[in-house]
Amino acid sequence: MKALIYKQVGQVEVQDRPIPQVAKPTDAVVKLTKTTICGTDLHIRKGDVATCAPGRILGHEGVGVVESVGGSVSRFKKGDPVLISCISSCATCEYCRRGMSSHCTTGGWVLGNEIDGTQAEYVRIPHADCSLYAIPKDVDEASLVTLSDIFPTGLECGVLNGKVQPGGTVVIVGAGPVGLAALITAKFYTPSMVIMLDTDDKRLKVAEDFGAHATINSGAMKQEDVIKAVQDLTDGKGCDTVIEAVGIPATFEISQRLLAPGGVLANVGVHGTKADLFLDELWSKNISITTRLVDATTTPMLLKMVEAKKLQPSQLITHKFKFSEIEKAYETFGKAQEHGALKVLIEMD
Amino acid sequence: MKALIYKQVGQVEVQDRPIPQVAKPTDAVVKLTKTTICGTDLHIRKGDVATCAPGRILGHEGVGVVESVGGSVSRFKKGDPVLISCISSCATCEYCRRGMSSHCTTGGWVLGNEIDGTQAEYVRIPHADCSLYAIPKDVDEASLVTLSDIFPTGLECGVLNGKVQPGGTVVIVGAGPVGLAALITAKFYTPSMVIMLDTDDKRLKVAEDFGAHATINSGAMKQEDVIKAVQDLTDGKGCDTVIEAVGIPATFEISQRLLAPGGVLANVGVHGTKADLFLDELWSKNISITTRLVDATTTPMLLKMVEAKKLQPSQLITHKFKFSEIEKAYETFGKAQEHGALKVLIEMD
Amino acid sequence: MKALIYKQVGQVEVQDRPIPQVAKPTDAVVKLTKTTICGTDLHIRKGDVATCAPGRILGHEGVGVVESVGGSVSRFKKGDPVLISCISSCATCEYCRRGMSSHCTTGGWVLGNEIDGTQAEYVRIPHADCSLYAIPKDVDEASLVTLSDIFPTGLECGVLNGKVQPGGTVVIVGAGPVGLAALITAKFYTPSMVIMLDTDDKRLKVAEDFGAHATINSGAMKQEDVIKAVQDLTDGKGCDTVIEAVGIPATFEISQRLLAPGGVLANVGVHGTKADLFLDELWSKNISITTRLVDATTTPMLLKMVEAKKLQPSQLITHKFKFSEIEKAYETFGKAQEHGALKVLIEMD
Amino acid sequence: MKALIYKQVGQVEVQDRPIPQVAKPTDAVVKLTKTTICGTDLHIRKGDVATCAPGRILGHEGVGVVESVGGSVSRFKKGDPVLISCISSCATCEYCRRGMSSHCTTGGWVLGNEIDGTQAEYVRIPHADCSLYAIPKDVDEASLVTLSDIFPTGLECGVLNGKVQPGGTVVIVGAGPVGLAALITAKFYTPSMVIMLDTDDKRLKVAEDFGAHATINSGAMKQEDVIKAVQDLTDGKGCDTVIEAVGIPATFEISQRLLAPGGVLANVGVHGTKADLFLDELWSKNISITTRLVDATTTPMLLKMVEAKKLQPSQLITHKFKFSEIEKAYETFGKAQEHGALKVLIEMD
Repeated sequence: MKALIYKQVGQVEVQDRPIPQVAKPTDAVVKLTKTTICGTDLHIRKGDVATCAPGRILGHEGVGVVESVGGSVSRFKKGDPVLISCISSCATCEYCRRGMSSHCTTGGWVLGNEIDGTQAEYVRIPHADCSLYAIPKDVDEASLVTLSDIFPTGLECGVLNGKVQPGGTVVIVGAGPVGLAALITAKFYTPSMVIMLDTDDKRLKVAEDFGAHATINSGAMKQEDVIKAVQDLTDGKGCDTVIEAVGIPATFEISQRLLAPGGVLANVGVHGTKADLFLDELWSKNISITTRLVDATTTPMLLKMVEAKKLQPSQLITHKFKFSEIEKAYETFGKAQEHGALKVLIEMD
Repeated sequence: MKALIYKQVGQVEVQDRPIPQVAKPTDAVVKLTKTTICGTDLHIRKGDVATCAPGRILGHEGVGVVESVGGSVSRFKKGDPVLISCISSCATCEYCRRGMSSHCTTGGWVLGNEIDGTQAEYVRIPHADCSLYAIPKDVDEASLVTLSDIFPTGLECGVLNGKVQPGGTVVIVGAGPVGLAALITAKFYTPSMVIMLDTDDKRLKVAEDFGAHATINSGAMKQEDVIKAVQDLTDGKGCDTVIEAVGIPATFEISQRLLAPGGVLANVGVHGTKADLFLDELWSKNISITTRLVDATTTPMLLKMVEAKKLQPSQLITHKFKFSEIEKAYETFGKAQEHGALKVLIEMD
Repeated sequence: MKALIYKQVGQVEVQDRPIPQVAKPTDAVVKLTKTTICGTDLHIRKGDVATCAPGRILGHEGVGVVESVGGSVSRFKKGDPVLISCISSCATCEYCRRGMSSHCTTGGWVLGNEIDGTQAEYVRIPHADCSLYAIPKDVDEASLVTLSDIFPTGLECGVLNGKVQPGGTVVIVGAGPVGLAALITAKFYTPSMVIMLDTDDKRLKVAEDFGAHATINSGAMKQEDVIKAVQDLTDGKGCDTVIEAVGIPATFEISQRLLAPGGVLANVGVHGTKADLFLDELWSKNISITTRLVDATTTPMLLKMVEAKKLQPSQLITHKFKFSEIEKAYETFGKAQEHGALKVLIEMD
Repeated sequence: MKALIYKQVGQVEVQDRPIPQVAKPTDAVVKLTKTTICGTDLHIRKGDVATCAPGRILGHEGVGVVESVGGSVSRFKKGDPVLISCISSCATCEYCRRGMSSHCTTGGWVLGNEIDGTQAEYVRIPHADCSLYAIPKDVDEASLVTLSDIFPTGLECGVLNGKVQPGGTVVIVGAGPVGLAALITAKFYTPSMVIMLDTDDKRLKVAEDFGAHATINSGAMKQEDVIKAVQDLTDGKGCDTVIEAVGIPATFEISQRLLAPGGVLANVGVHGTKADLFLDELWSKNISITTRLVDATTTPMLLKMVEAKKLQPSQLITHKFKFSEIEKAYETFGKAQEHGALKVLIEMD
């Protein structure tokens, strides 16, 4: 089969590989119909992800059809259309039982990282019963690739950790795909205001189209002016929820200063370095800071929201490619801002 | 009347002052019977607390008897024995309604800070109905001074924010009075283990007497050895709850490394500077960090626990002084470690 | 002044009464600009409410302008436009501190019940600081009368107690004003489905206009057919949330049978008699049943939602009367179904 | 092998049966070392449990050693000492994911009910990975039979559903084994008071030994006197938590009248008939009523509590029998009150 390989730092390449087979009774093999590329894949290509060795088939998102299942898989059979979760969950270890499948002792984020992933014609999915989801009837299957990772990430790490509430105020720092997924899912809880902060007017325009109440282009602004702009929108208080969706010290640090007393800073960004924590300002402010690797425990809820037409998973898809063009798709997605790219849909040939 | 004044940086002094009077209908004036000294009073003496100007009568803890009340005080009358909360709460502002009385727009921590405090023969208490508490019958009134601040602080900022649970593991960094108050109140929730970390063997001995399951004297240890010691006690996982009860970058930083996946770092310490936040280690660890200035919303619960003999508020009192000796009490408490002092009880003459 | 009096069982009447005065320092007197009639007022007229004696000025909803305040009222002054809460809250008793203002030991639902109410030119409001709300700029003041009682009731007793969640399923038994208020506020949490059940097609049509996903006219149906209809809409499971908004045994009993495993039956109805509880069916079904007298603790949130244009409080107003026509308004509201009446707005002359 | 069979209404009998074998890859077969008898087994013997047909091997509690495992069982292997949960959980269905394993679509309470159970030399356990628990070192293995069902039931259905809190007041109606398990686990949360109500002085004496703060023998009392007795102990308020651990209308009905405003009635009893719900008294009292079939999701926590010496699982064991005497054990347990029996430990020969 054809598969997209992490060849070496800076390079991915389509290669021929053997079709994966069921190796354990809990496995399933899925024939992909659609996949997509995540920001994390770009990190891997840059050599930033130590757990992912050269030679690995990338990808942890996708939809497809079950090709074969191991002897103990009870929820799926050959021919079932399925959504693949970015998180593989054994369902029975201490962490899975506590709803922290991201820390599953024999799973977690392994696809396209520690084991071969979904940017290929076929993929082997461990712990299939709890790592695949049946695709409901009458939903747009292709766009469900956004439910593999990005919508659960925005919802769990951003909105739920950030305790978005009716009447509350929210600022999302970073209007990339995950920041926008947080915006879209924040609206499940009807906050009175969602402010989007970014340095790219095109992304902020998208945020407005997706229902942001206000946008701030912080590109040419001093930090104190950004803080003031948020305060002016919130009666001088700052926001009840601050969602950091960038992953660098500068954005994390300003995020702290956008918090209202009693607020929550929900980190979504992937950080490669430490940041300053302004404890002298925050120790008495009754705030929380949360981190989370997506657990994908909200996938069933998100699927219900899609079925009920309360969520349009295609909203984030801006580009489509054939799998034979996946290297080009990497180029486009790698320069996402230039191309106005959010999620790129890759269709198997 | 006699009152202890913050005279200038480095100096406190007993002076004569006029007896305070009811100034607003919501005020009460209380004749003190006991007061105590808080670590914060020492910070004020050092000049660290910008909101507290020279000339201020210090103290935000105490028990006494109501001397007079304003026209709208309905819960107390002259002669009632009362506990004074360190937090004055109007009960009706946005923050008080949300249980964040520490941020009361016309109260919060004002006693012995922005207005005259309790280290005096009399004190004026604003918002008396929600800032004083009736003393139950048959309880040891004197020792209730520990319910003005230190027990609510340990419980709210440490134990409740830290989500201590039956079967959970807890490490408390700092075995000073507030760390010990956190230890004592953590046991309300029957964690399977509470580890105390300090550099003073005497304090660790007290922690053992108060029921710590393990103690670590980190004084001569390398950071990695401290981390290893905690991991060895917790199956290599770290703790579900880490309570930081010191307030300096070094202790806050090590606290982050004692966290189990899914854990909470509950900050209790008063910080005068920023600290490093190891986001590169923590972003995917599903942890929370909380801060809180005590709201004293648990005072009614703590009083019930005292009444039910589930809490011995005198446990933390190590020294007693007459009010005429209060300057000496400051000396003793200022060198708490040397004197083995936790809380010093000051009795009015 | 003119005031509407509960004269005797079956009769209300406009009479002349003295203008009320501030009696305690915590009181305010408000000059009404609008008021309305509640289903409870009809219960009083029927003699069903033992706490309300003949001679009482009725009414616990209204907006107006502060006429005078007692010496300790700090949040309001003469001339302020205010919303009157149906619940008077001292803010400092045990129950108010726990968010159960309905059980305030010196307040609760007293207006138009134990003390004179709002169907008059003026009303005295006890505990004014926590029982009145400033009216935000740029909102339609008149329609805020629906925030005095009915919207907090639908939200607190129905939606919040019922734990409505994104993706969840809801059935509301009774499409009267409070059932519709529950429908409107349920949508703050984006359930995947809200089913409305009633016996009146006109009300069900209104429910559809307000966004119900399905309606069932149970008038001519057998109980088992109603249950089947709800199961057919919910994959055979029943609903995660059942909101009982009628208040008679028959509707409470069917409500139990509409519950999914793990669901919540949130009672909103005012019940005058006991009902059967089918414990033999429910003991193993992991369900909850909740009751609540509105606490009006969500009024600040609801006002924010109005300001943010996320809630249109006028949606429930179907009729307008002058205060001089209030007896006629009672007739109309008393035959609400015949007149298609939800809330009637009564404007002071 | 020898096994205890439900022969016909009123009769159980030891018979020879074939040793069960692994039937699915997720199964394990366990050789029992200890088992016990549950009140539910007596219900089955009486013919009250429609799902349990004659011929069934009874029993859903036990400890043993793994004899063999199916191909996909990953957490256990032959020779492992294990605790058997009364609830079999697939871990992956909608209900298991929501923590409601009692409603597992292919499990739940099936042992000794819909499939053969643990009162035998061997038992087949479906979904072994999530239905067995490794026995920690250094714990008294025999007494862990009380962790199969009764301790999780008391904790989950009674204490957790009942929201027992530090400082709160609790009354437990029924001092049988499950009521006592609720008492013991309630103390994890340090309530200020636990009152036990029963009609048997011997059981009330045991309750006192286990730490009840007060006991009431309601046998010869009128309902109003029982209510008054509870009010007298609770400042006239009733209890924050009422745990119903009997399962008949009379006890459920009195339970409603022991509730404080804002309280929770947590039903633990197995009910065979409906009961009266006093909605006319309760609709405005802000209370909750909960039901739950034990999910056994707290078993890991309970095992930690045993390891940490915070729970003595042997506390409830009053009698010991050989398996060859199991019919006699049924006689003894069937007349539990007469024999002062709580749990009877049955040791395999």
